[in-house]
Amino acid sequence: MTELRVPSRILMGPGPSDVDPRVLRVMATPLVGHLDPAFLDVLNEVMALLRQAFQTANRLTLPISGTGSAGMETVLVNLLEPGDRAVVGVNGEFGRRMADIVRRCGAELYAVEAEWGRALDPSAVEDALRKAKNPKLLAVVHAETSTGVLQPIPPLGELARRAGALLVVDCVTSLGGCEVALDAWEVDAAYSGTQKCLSCPPGLAPVSLGTRAEEALLRRKTPVQSWYLDLTMIMNYWGKDRFYHHTAPISMLYALREALRLVEEEGLDRRFCRHRLHSRAVCAGLEAMGLELFVPEPWRLPTLTAVRVPEGADDLRTRRALLDRFGIEIGGGLGPLKGKIWRIGTMGYSCQPRNVILLMAALEAVLREQGLGPPPGAGMSAAAEILADGERTG
Amino acid sequence: MTELRVPSRILMGPGPSDVDPRVLRVMATPLVGHLDPAFLDVLNEVMALLRQAFQTANRLTLPISGTGSAGMETVLVNLLEPGDRAVVGVNGEFGRRMADIVRRCGAELYAVEAEWGRALDPSAVEDALRKAKNPKLLAVVHAETSTGVLQPIPPLGELARRAGALLVVDCVTSLGGCEVALDAWEVDAAYSGTQKCLSCPPGLAPVSLGTRAEEALLRRKTPVQSWYLDLTMIMNYWGKDRFYHHTAPISMLYALREALRLVEEEGLDRRFCRHRLHSRAVCAGLEAMGLELFVPEPWRLPTLTAVRVPEGADDLRTRRALLDRFGIEIGGGLGPLKGKIWRIGTMGYSCQPRNVILLMAALEAVLREQGLGPPPGAGMSAAAEILADGERTG
Repeated sequence: MTELRVPSRILMGPGPSDVDPRVLRVMATPLVGHLDPAFLDVLNEVMALLRQAFQTANRLTLPISGTGSAGMETVLVNLLEPGDRAVVGVNGEFGRRMADIVRRCGAELYAVEAEWGRALDPSAVEDALRKAKNPKLLAVVHAETSTGVLQPIPPLGELARRAGALLVVDCVTSLGGCEVALDAWEVDAAYSGTQKCLSCPPGLAPVSLGTRAEEALLRRKTPVQSWYLDLTMIMNYWGKDRFYHHTAPISMLYALREALRLVEEEGLDRRFCRHRLHSRAVCAGLEAMGLELFVPEPWRLPTLTAVRVPEGADDLRTRRALLDRFGIEIGGGLGPLKGKIWRIGTMGYSCQPRNVILLMAALEAVLREQGLGPPPGAGMSAAAEILADGERTG
Repeated sequence: MTELRVPSRILMGPGPSDVDPRVLRVMATPLVGHLDPAFLDVLNEVMALLRQAFQTANRLTLPISGTGSAGMETVLVNLLEPGDRAVVGVNGEFGRRMADIVRRCGAELYAVEAEWGRALDPSAVEDALRKAKNPKLLAVVHAETSTGVLQPIPPLGELARRAGALLVVDCVTSLGGCEVALDAWEVDAAYSGTQKCLSCPPGLAPVSLGTRAEEALLRRKTPVQSWYLDLTMIMNYWGKDRFYHHTAPISMLYALREALRLVEEEGLDRRFCRHRLHSRAVCAGLEAMGLELFVPEPWRLPTLTAVRVPEGADDLRTRRALLDRFGIEIGGGLGPLKGKIWRIGTMGYSCQPRNVILLMAALEAVLREQGLGPPPGAGMSAAAEILADGERTG
């Protein structure tokens, strides 16, 4: 077999995002053992940096050895036992996935639905919590990667606490890209992935459990159905006992440490500001091209923009042309949104002025070839203006 | 936080092993998307190379996005349903772990035990299969990492087929280091890890299911209890449909591809021969130093050697001195063998003459300091002789 040869890409889809060269480089570090005293320092440092990113003091904050979906499964299988009742917000693919896992845990599902592209209505959540009677948890997606919707969390925290339910939040596409404040929001358990706004390769799933979630875990009457994701054992490797559970993915942990160092160096506020600025530029550029944004203003994610595929444009042909001729990846729609929207990520290292400007230029060229006529240069100009403005005002 | 600084190690424990520089380097390759046409070629190549390594034509041969233990869980949760009966060989930590997962699947466990450090007795396996009546599967560990025992598989295949049970084999510490011939041995399902004899960082778990196992999977009456490890969905990403399931760990797949290319370049026979030679050298060296091997001759693993901690030696002090002064990691005992044995891996890239010779010299020095007196130079000489002999005869 020949040596690996892959094309050079600019990753502006729903993830993975481009990885900072510093993170790529650190992965080439030779291994130390997963029980080496030097590696145990690495574990502690990763936990400390993750707490900063999640804005939490939660002791049990660590990356699970799998991708973001493994984080989702970890939180749900550890907190749910057969017969428990769980209220799940379903307004996109990832809410749907949580519902699926809840059922596989043998728990009773109370789904709160909302139209894909809209946030959940807190009063509908309140009704579901009441109907569920003593629900064990309320699980929602903070940043719905399939639709580009940002769900406001604080109002839900209040509702969950009143119902005596744990609040579980999916932060896969928000952590490191926009405000995620577990302690201030009184979130009991959260999970994320590394390949979105942290700009680290996919392969790890940061999770964080607060005191109430940890208590629920320790009060379980049945064993966690997954051995691999059983936090009652995993916490003894990451804790002071350093018990062997499974071999930690060493190179990926080197990478995550470096990615989190980059977050720390930039600072959360500046990082969130950068993401807001670039997504505003993308939105302005798309609208100037005559395209229609999929999500109404108050709920737009500052890390991923969903836009309707314009009438007359060919979804696949457009994405393929962006990829083949400009090396730019954007995402298509999932499930009911297949062929209807594009998803444009501006996450982590991909969130750069040059990428936004190039995408506007490339998309204009590709749409024009299909007989669609966005005003020449309008997208680029609108995006560039916002970016320049942002640079002036810091 | 400061930049990553880790000491330089020679990994001769039970895994991870040292990673070939070519594999480290390829991990620094910038990402392409997990649905990029160029990446789908990578997936196909990894599957093809894995089939060669497993010596199988099994269509369903792919790496799971987790470490070796995730491979174990994948095979068991996909093949077992609540109420199924499973016969599991338990003669070490990893057999014990399989038994634990079988219980978490709600299946009925029939354990066949053997002393740690000995292989399972086929007649005891036969009895258990009979007692279990219509068992769904027989699961055994081919290379027991906790004891250094190699379990002969062909006789068990015959027994499993007669009982109508699927044969599941743990190949974590054998794949790429010694003969693993799934098709010739009529193994129905196997799993491995990347960080042992493949000398790739930990983080992926190659699995392979044959036709009968695939049929059992498709005949399931209940959903697989794990969403993340559900092969009925994962196979649609790795198959021709390329359905999104979870984001594949791209950099790790680059690494595995390169590690498997190295296996292909060396050739399986030469690679197995190299592992046999180096473990023979380790055994000869240890015995020349007056140490006692833990596993009787016929069952010794050619990838991992277990040796008794000699009377008068301090387990922790010895291992710590090897690590701190010589940068060499070897493993201690697990569970009932804690403090009683050392585990010396000669796997993949770690399996080199210079490592074996250095370890003999270093171990002699460290034992001598504790008042133990192996004959000066005896370990090195004995090991060197075997290695030189091996080089002469090829």
